[in-house]
Amino acid sequence: MTEKIARFFEEQRPQTPCLVVDLDVVERNYNDLSEALPDARIYYAVKANPAPEILSLLNRLGSAFDTASVPEIEMVLAAGCTPDRISYGNTIKKEADIRRAFELGVRLFAFDSEAELEKIERAAPGARVFCRILTSGEGAEWPLSRKFGCDLPMARELLLKARDMNVEPWGVSFHVGSQQKDLTQWDIAIAQVAMLFRDLEAHGVDLGMINLGGGFPTRYRSDVPASAAYGEAIFHSLRQHFGNHLPEAIVEPGRGMVGNAGVIESEVVLISRKSANERKRWVYLDIGKFGGLAETMDEAIQYPIETPVDHDEETEPVVLAGPTCDSADVLYEKTEYHLPLSLKVGDRVRIRATGAYTTTYSAVCFNGFSPLQSYCI
Amino acid sequence: MTEKIARFFEEQRPQTPCLVVDLDVVERNYNDLSEALPDARIYYAVKANPAPEILSLLNRLGSAFDTASVPEIEMVLAAGCTPDRISYGNTIKKEADIRRAFELGVRLFAFDSEAELEKIERAAPGARVFCRILTSGEGAEWPLSRKFGCDLPMARELLLKARDMNVEPWGVSFHVGSQQKDLTQWDIAIAQVAMLFRDLEAHGVDLGMINLGGGFPTRYRSDVPASAAYGEAIFHSLRQHFGNHLPEAIVEPGRGMVGNAGVIESEVVLISRKSANERKRWVYLDIGKFGGLAETMDEAIQYPIETPVDHDEETEPVVLAGPTCDSADVLYEKTEYHLPLSLKVGDRVRIRATGAYTTTYSAVCFNGFSPLQSYCI
Repeated sequence: MTEKIARFFEEQRPQTPCLVVDLDVVERNYNDLSEALPDARIYYAVKANPAPEILSLLNRLGSAFDTASVPEIEMVLAAGCTPDRISYGNTIKKEADIRRAFELGVRLFAFDSEAELEKIERAAPGARVFCRILTSGEGAEWPLSRKFGCDLPMARELLLKARDMNVEPWGVSFHVGSQQKDLTQWDIAIAQVAMLFRDLEAHGVDLGMINLGGGFPTRYRSDVPASAAYGEAIFHSLRQHFGNHLPEAIVEPGRGMVGNAGVIESEVVLISRKSANERKRWVYLDIGKFGGLAETMDEAIQYPIETPVDHDEETEPVVLAGPTCDSADVLYEKTEYHLPLSLKVGDRVRIRATGAYTTTYSAVCFNGFSPLQSYCI
Repeated sequence: MTEKIARFFEEQRPQTPCLVVDLDVVERNYNDLSEALPDARIYYAVKANPAPEILSLLNRLGSAFDTASVPEIEMVLAAGCTPDRISYGNTIKKEADIRRAFELGVRLFAFDSEAELEKIERAAPGARVFCRILTSGEGAEWPLSRKFGCDLPMARELLLKARDMNVEPWGVSFHVGSQQKDLTQWDIAIAQVAMLFRDLEAHGVDLGMINLGGGFPTRYRSDVPASAAYGEAIFHSLRQHFGNHLPEAIVEPGRGMVGNAGVIESEVVLISRKSANERKRWVYLDIGKFGGLAETMDEAIQYPIETPVDHDEETEPVVLAGPTCDSADVLYEKTEYHLPLSLKVGDRVRIRATGAYTTTYSAVCFNGFSPLQSYCI
């Protein structure tokens, strides 16, 4: 937690629950990643946190943007970005939305299927397209399904097909899975992409771009490799598999750009036991799975939690749960969380590393609770 | 799907995704349940669907209301309900919210812990309180955790304690788990509550109310027992365990009241395969886990899906997924869903039995997508 955020909480005493994002940390993350990957272009994954202040800052720093929908494109344009720095990275788009994006000036589109390619040709003639391939997602903390991407033979077939269509086959993308801590996963994917590049080159398709996706982690309860380590591993891998014929490389950090910049403050609503001799206490917060902490699904993302009595050495294992009447609204039950015995109802706790995938996930008004409030400072 | 809803979709062609609720079905559900449980008072669980039209209708029919928060209490009051028909059924409440509810006239509060009881005494002096006990939730389709309720010995101790406080120990509640299809689960719980009543009576605490909770199911892909069967089982059970000394009984249907009254219309955004020889096709809709179908979490609730080409006998197994860039936004992958081979991009499909737990679950603007639009007709 930065001093700036601590001061904000102290001076403003905002209503809980709320998220506070320190823009200086976002700027530092951007600069660190730019230095670590000097040859790659950064496309910030807007979905991680689309706060206007974050988009404006990153635009000013020269970032490009990876978007998932027309409203996200409009937000990025409103932040002052030009359309040539916007990628429409969702492989699942309505044709009307592709057309709208094209009208707004966007010229870079993702696809992973024949139907999507045909939609792009019709609605965005002449645009650059890149094909997303499937990866295993091994080592990622946020589960990667088979939802996005196609296998290599199909990617090859589709890019060959694109050559004969009114679109420009421009590149290949992959995603190693969000919160990826295994650096070798990039190498595995890059090797496959390089093979595909050479194969297609031999068939007259000269691709210009490799999209390395996101996956850059944020520090939750355990350490993660620094940006520099990622940069080195990726650079080494690109050199090894592409030699001197390096394509343009782009990365799409979301969590890695804003995750550690945010802190949520929440109030303890209740502390109780289910029976006289229960080992674990239940600690209920005023934020839960439906108020912004959706990534606690299956206890995947484990946020660090600070209490005002952390100096107290006597702790007890707890179950952490949200405030709604939904029995699924439990944050951590299997994961061991210990909190001080002296923690009491009304105390404010701080949930760190919550800058990414929180505000936008929060439900409209489940159980009558308002969506997560957020401040960028 | 009712004729009224079908006509609405045809004539209005609303933008997808959207939910349409037929108020006639809600009225029928209310009347069926009232007839099935003539001696029980119905407290509609507002969290299932707080649409003003639904609240007004149920208020007009004479329903009482189970609420989870102050905003829900305010919505119910706005619908014309008097505070004597409102229960603040959440066992996890901020003291300030209890006070606010008390100021608004609410006199019935749930608790399951000593700390909550003390909050109620301070903030709502003299109010009626009921203690929620833990049940196993066996047989329920939507998982019931240990989040709510305490064990019987603790409930006994707390209700004895309440006798000596400035609150009125009024009853006991339980919940057999949402979408409960095993009728014997009510009997198991009612037997325990009756035992507790007799024990407390011997100690001078004369409880007046048993809150049978919700759990009444809605028909998804397979049949569920009719309201009459639930009524009969519960009535029989109450007679058996309480004899002629029947307490006031209340029920809190949510899903059972509005689930089958709603239909979501959604557009097919993309149909694809991940490789040339993949058995399953992927069908991507414009609504997913974060747009209102949160109950597909772990594929728990399995909605029936209608397509415009259901007459086509040739079907293929599909994976169903939502439109966001989130890899967790997959609706059904393990559950077998077969859809017609002739289904195509742009077709509108109808997701039935979606009147409960959809609109309010939808995310504020995840990936830039708007929350689920809803119409009550």
